[in-house]
Amino acid sequence: MINMQRVYFATGNPHKVEEAKLILRDYNVELMHLNTQRVEIQSSDLVEIAVYSLNQIVKDFKQPVFVEDTGLFINSLNGFPGPFSSYVFKTLGNKGIIKLMKGEADRNALFKTVIAFKESDRDQIKIFIGETLGLISEEIRGVGWGYDPLFIPLEGDGRTYAEMSLEEKNLLSHRFKALKSLGDYLRKV
Amino acid sequence: MINMQRVYFATGNPHKVEEAKLILRDYNVELMHLNTQRVEIQSSDLVEIAVYSLNQIVKDFKQPVFVEDTGLFINSLNGFPGPFSSYVFKTLGNKGIIKLMKGEADRNALFKTVIAFKESDRDQIKIFIGETLGLISEEIRGVGWGYDPLFIPLEGDGRTYAEMSLEEKNLLSHRFKALKSLGDYLRKV
Repeated sequence: MINMQRVYFATGNPHKVEEAKLILRDYNVELMHLNTQRVEIQSSDLVEIAVYSLNQIVKDFKQPVFVEDTGLFINSLNGFPGPFSSYVFKTLGNKGIIKLMKGEADRNALFKTVIAFKESDRDQIKIFIGETLGLISEEIRGVGWGYDPLFIPLEGDGRTYAEMSLEEKNLLSHRFKALKSLGDYLRKV
Repeated sequence: MINMQRVYFATGNPHKVEEAKLILRDYNVELMHLNTQRVEIQSSDLVEIAVYSLNQIVKDFKQPVFVEDTGLFINSLNGFPGPFSSYVFKTLGNKGIIKLMKGEADRNALFKTVIAFKESDRDQIKIFIGETLGLISEEIRGVGWGYDPLFIPLEGDGRTYAEMSLEEKNLLSHRFKALKSLGDYLRKV
């Protein structure tokens, strides 16, 4: 019988939990949802945001727990929308990004996920990072969540995330890379 | 002899302190600079951001103190850049706003300042708000700080904030309105 390790994912987004559950199961992690309104600070650094958020949570919660923060950093826009990707998506959407990128020759972008994890009995926060380089497409391609219809991963074949099957996307995805690093660490603990 | 009231302005920006000092002097307030790195959370609500920030500060600071948060809310961009005005200015700048607003018929916008104030001996936070309605200009006009070269206050004569003298701007300015409300309150205390 395999011993499953119980770890909590602190987020207000149940879809992210379902996604992470599938990945972490392969690492003998039983993922639980800690449904909480995270405090996200304004910073241009995802690690700072995640660590602050986690520190607020672990004040009252003593189980192994992690938070995740993701941003799309576009080169020619000085890293915009970066840590504010979710707010920018809600207000400007992909239409706004296309408008901002009109005429820009440099279409390089970085999708980055930071996971901050804290174990119940230790004080130290562990950071796991997943990054995927890509290009911003000139128009919306495919149907997908968030910026997926605009992001063409460099390691791919020219399709956007949204034009790929979930399995294809997961092989390249920034979020999956971060979750797999967490999984590797937990397996060794 | 007039009794001056000592109040602290918690901000990392000394220019804002100088500006506020001049206004609040008329209300017999001696403004002091509490130079501190404020914690700004990600929220679409300026009041929530200011209150959180102030609550972090007053944990260690027992004098009368306030924080200020300002945002430009553009109608046709669903309130963007809103509470993230400073980050968006640093990354996209006025050039980016002009690009986003290209072809938009509705150019209405709101400049809003929220001040959260706490007195030494009371628990309650007082909120003071200053708002100015305006239009987003089609191009950069005048030389000024932040979004001033793009913002045409409705109460004005068609010039942007940046095309006005400081005295003219102050008569209409969102930040001045909020500081004056604070001044009125302090005079009555």
